[in-house]
Amino acid sequence: MAQRVYLDWNATAPLRPQAEQALRDALALAGNPSSVHAEGRAARHAIERAREEVAALVAARPADVIFTSGGTEANMLALTPAIETSTEKRPRGKLLMSAIEHSSVRAGGRFSRDAIADIAVNADGRVNLAALADAISKAPRPLVSIMLANNETGVVQPVSEAAAIAHAGGGLLHVDAVQAAGRIACDIGALGADLLSISAHKIGAPKGVGALIRGREDIHFPDPLMRGGGQERGSRAGTENVAGIAAFGAAVAAVRRQRAEEAAHMLALRNMLEEGLRAISPQIVIFGAAAERLPNTTLFALEGMKAETAVIAFDLEGVAVSSGAACSSGKVQPSHVLAAMGVSPPLLRGAVRVSLGWTTTEADIARVLGAWRKVSGALSKGSKERPGMAA
Amino acid sequence: MAQRVYLDWNATAPLRPQAEQALRDALALAGNPSSVHAEGRAARHAIERAREEVAALVAARPADVIFTSGGTEANMLALTPAIETSTEKRPRGKLLMSAIEHSSVRAGGRFSRDAIADIAVNADGRVNLAALADAISKAPRPLVSIMLANNETGVVQPVSEAAAIAHAGGGLLHVDAVQAAGRIACDIGALGADLLSISAHKIGAPKGVGALIRGREDIHFPDPLMRGGGQERGSRAGTENVAGIAAFGAAVAAVRRQRAEEAAHMLALRNMLEEGLRAISPQIVIFGAAAERLPNTTLFALEGMKAETAVIAFDLEGVAVSSGAACSSGKVQPSHVLAAMGVSPPLLRGAVRVSLGWTTTEADIARVLGAWRKVSGALSKGSKERPGMAA
Repeated sequence: MAQRVYLDWNATAPLRPQAEQALRDALALAGNPSSVHAEGRAARHAIERAREEVAALVAARPADVIFTSGGTEANMLALTPAIETSTEKRPRGKLLMSAIEHSSVRAGGRFSRDAIADIAVNADGRVNLAALADAISKAPRPLVSIMLANNETGVVQPVSEAAAIAHAGGGLLHVDAVQAAGRIACDIGALGADLLSISAHKIGAPKGVGALIRGREDIHFPDPLMRGGGQERGSRAGTENVAGIAAFGAAVAAVRRQRAEEAAHMLALRNMLEEGLRAISPQIVIFGAAAERLPNTTLFALEGMKAETAVIAFDLEGVAVSSGAACSSGKVQPSHVLAAMGVSPPLLRGAVRVSLGWTTTEADIARVLGAWRKVSGALSKGSKERPGMAA
Repeated sequence: MAQRVYLDWNATAPLRPQAEQALRDALALAGNPSSVHAEGRAARHAIERAREEVAALVAARPADVIFTSGGTEANMLALTPAIETSTEKRPRGKLLMSAIEHSSVRAGGRFSRDAIADIAVNADGRVNLAALADAISKAPRPLVSIMLANNETGVVQPVSEAAAIAHAGGGLLHVDAVQAAGRIACDIGALGADLLSISAHKIGAPKGVGALIRGREDIHFPDPLMRGGGQERGSRAGTENVAGIAAFGAAVAAVRRQRAEEAAHMLALRNMLEEGLRAISPQIVIFGAAAERLPNTTLFALEGMKAETAVIAFDLEGVAVSSGAACSSGKVQPSHVLAAMGVSPPLLRGAVRVSLGWTTTEADIARVLGAWRKVSGALSKGSKERPGMAA
């Protein structure tokens, strides 16, 4: 049996060997990082070393990194009206977010439903900055949440421009960089982000770890999501995931050394993939292709194709891809990202995402194109002869 | 150099070999459990297998296990006014908790500070049930939070009696079983707990995993702590810590097989320890010794001893012990547990906790007693000759 080809790296990435090694080393540390004895201090040291690595990835100060249980928790922690700065203690009245944010941002954190407003995106998949400016003029001092790169399309958002607009209106900017970190530059100062979320498992560390990083040291959460112990300088109580955090640091160290090379490698393969898809299916639509995208992500559709059918057909061919975001509810729903981009209904339910990683090879691309030849052939045949097959 | 002796198992336990194996196996699973392809289904399967093990530890249904990032998150999720049952949708107005709860419970979750009331404990370290009944008569339908065993003294609380009182007053009972699980019986039905928190790293799995378990299937959190994706049947959004959860399941499976034997082993060694301590220091006070305690925990003090000095002295002798709870804030504070038990100020700041585990040996007990002989000698000498040494 041919080996399987994993091309769903935006859902989660395989473990990097450096992360696995760091994890194994840290698992041998018996202590609780809050304990004062030698075992505790060794565990503490592993966390602080990882904190330096994670800070360096986004050019932040180590003290501004708050480790969490993942990207979702980082987003939940960030999105609260009760964010204080040294000069602004009043709660934030409004949360403005792009219409294409991840579900963990769209949930709105601790803002009430009626305090949340969507900012439109353009047909190319980028947030509409005029709409953002207009919303802020109506609701000054908001918290704004704009992702750095979309998880479905890979489209890179105009974050530094959004930061300037948010700051001019007295707002703060949170950036969900979960998909971007490790794939494109992610300098928190250059982005103008006041807060930035990243997830470990998207860059080759285990699932269950993430971080919220402050872009300015005076940001303070008077009412953190996790309370009790004084861990993470009071911003996140609970015994730390020592081994996961150590692995996170090691993955980040690897990606810092290798990002440019990995990105070029993925981009070359992605171009090969998209040329191949277009050659096989001239009518194919590749979403967001007019905008700057992550080097590893392709979201495409073909009229008449049902995404769930295609994903299962790829799976049977030994290729793991997805229909947009990993479907946590068990139900496939039309993409809110494509809907916000104004994609027409016939294409909306047919989008398939192929996302590459640092170990992806030309042979993998050949496999996915071979699978697509069969899948698209069966689908177009099916659409003529068996219209009910996707039900 | 002599090997170190780790006797701070209530802070965190070393990894069980079964957990380490399960962790390694699960790390090889590349998929996101929410993905529909084969890789995703394999990750999902690992989680669901662990869910069955964790449910079995407390005799609950697998569907009633909600995996979290640890005990703190389980407590934070549980302690919210917005808990619904099939017959009771109104928010809970009051949170009643024993005065000796862990800091993650004492923080009060999402209850406002003025909605929280403490229930006194007796001098033996057990919650005062008359005080609980009295409090409920004044504030019906509360959420009540009583730990199953205290982390500092090891004293086992009268949870099933508290459950009867809480339920008679229309209340719900949350039980923090973080220290008890795996050491004493923990049958959620027998305890009468409506919700029960456990932590993986206290029973030999990695840090960063825990669970909140429902004792009745109709409990629902309309406003979970983590929102966005539909993971954990809507009770906890975020990509699951697959490897940590798999290791949790394996550790639980091991402890279910071995608990009776491990408990007897730890109890025999704990008795040896306490006899030895009393022989060396006849004036020693062992807290909670009049009540039923966990088989592995000894909290003791000697008048004139400063806990932080003693812990450091033990550490220099190669023995890891603690001064009550692991000190997450970096500051040693007098124990709120002993204060609630009415312990006098001279002893309050001097309590040292020795907590044993399943790999603890007679030689370890001999080492800690040898260290105590030196430490207590130096301390009593110091208290005569160098009164400033503990500053």
